[in-house]
Amino acid sequence: MDFQAFYQLSYGLYIITSVWDNKKNGFIGNTVFQVTSKPPTMAISVNKENYTHDIIAESKFFAVSVLTRNTSMDIIRTFGYNSGKDMDKFANVTVQTSENGLPLVLNDTSALFECRVIKTVDAGTHTLFIGEILSAELVQPNADPLTYKYYREVHKGKAPAKAPTFIDETDIKAGEEIYTCQICHYQYKASAGDPDHGIAPGTSFEDLPDDWTCPVCGATKDLFEKN
Amino acid sequence: MDFQAFYQLSYGLYIITSVWDNKKNGFIGNTVFQVTSKPPTMAISVNKENYTHDIIAESKFFAVSVLTRNTSMDIIRTFGYNSGKDMDKFANVTVQTSENGLPLVLNDTSALFECRVIKTVDAGTHTLFIGEILSAELVQPNADPLTYKYYREVHKGKAPAKAPTFIDETDIKAGEEIYTCQICHYQYKASAGDPDHGIAPGTSFEDLPDDWTCPVCGATKDLFEKN
Repeated sequence: MDFQAFYQLSYGLYIITSVWDNKKNGFIGNTVFQVTSKPPTMAISVNKENYTHDIIAESKFFAVSVLTRNTSMDIIRTFGYNSGKDMDKFANVTVQTSENGLPLVLNDTSALFECRVIKTVDAGTHTLFIGEILSAELVQPNADPLTYKYYREVHKGKAPAKAPTFIDETDIKAGEEIYTCQICHYQYKASAGDPDHGIAPGTSFEDLPDDWTCPVCGATKDLFEKN
Repeated sequence: MDFQAFYQLSYGLYIITSVWDNKKNGFIGNTVFQVTSKPPTMAISVNKENYTHDIIAESKFFAVSVLTRNTSMDIIRTFGYNSGKDMDKFANVTVQTSENGLPLVLNDTSALFECRVIKTVDAGTHTLFIGEILSAELVQPNADPLTYKYYREVHKGKAPAKAPTFIDETDIKAGEEIYTCQICHYQYKASAGDPDHGIAPGTSFEDLPDDWTCPVCGATKDLFEKN
């Protein structure tokens, strides 16, 4: 199987949010797509380990903000590279609470959707939530939506290999070896390890088990490149 | 609900094929997306009225060709605007039969996937087929995949309003009023009508029932514009 083939699939990038029992959260996902037009329905694929997963499973509602091409790296970092278990992702963004009580992120958003889950499909590591679309709103009619391909290409092009824009440079120790995921640009640093997945700080990239995968996007080790 | 918001969702364009009992067919779809990476699985949404739908439902296998930006309008027309009930869509394309017996379209293809259906989800007018990916092959490493947005924009930009490239000009009667779907560019002509959906030739656009929708993409009447 040639994993490079997977890069040929086209996706947008979205913030998917939900709220339940005073817990609200959101994450950046790419698998958002219309399923039927009568009635309008939409499906999303969400990793079961994701904090928002459980909130959607409880509330049966989710909202989708379509990100634009000029989305700030602050938004990407906040919603894509952090867990809502550790921080309030909404602290520094513009949020509007919808009639259904859903938190709608307005920053860098071209369109907004609100959905009520009508079907939940167990797909192993992920759940497919199929939602009836309750509302669809065009926020920025002339904005280009951000695609996953554009995101990869632009940030590969603009940022020096050792300091992609979304990584605090203060985070990188002088001389330390960094391995970058060629899919999502997550950077593995031995000093930090990957404690969430049993990798102690101090573990070199070479010593990672062969079945270790990118904690952000699930890419295998061979898809990492040394900076 | 603002249907313009739906244009902000990003999709690629794909030929989805299958074979069962000597019947093989394929169609152009845009809802193809990875669901999980362990194991690699992929979902597609297929209209139940689609001939390929029943073939996939029987065979439990499907293949996906990722179309490239330079895909010929012949391919788009053959697989996107015809039914395999009426013609052999494979007559004039390069097809390879895979080890699993699936017809793989190679024209204008950047990557190929073969899937075995592991879950079938009833989604009303459509079925979601979730497939385990059996093979993934990169055919053209440097090709840009065709996106639905690019397809809409380029063909809107290059072709005169009365003669989009994929419509035979000989098909258009001099002086006849044409209404074009702003979503998929299907053209409604009174002289042809829409017999597959009970609309007799000679029916003017104005006389179409209010609940008539684009036979290609399902857009409502208000999304058509007179050329």
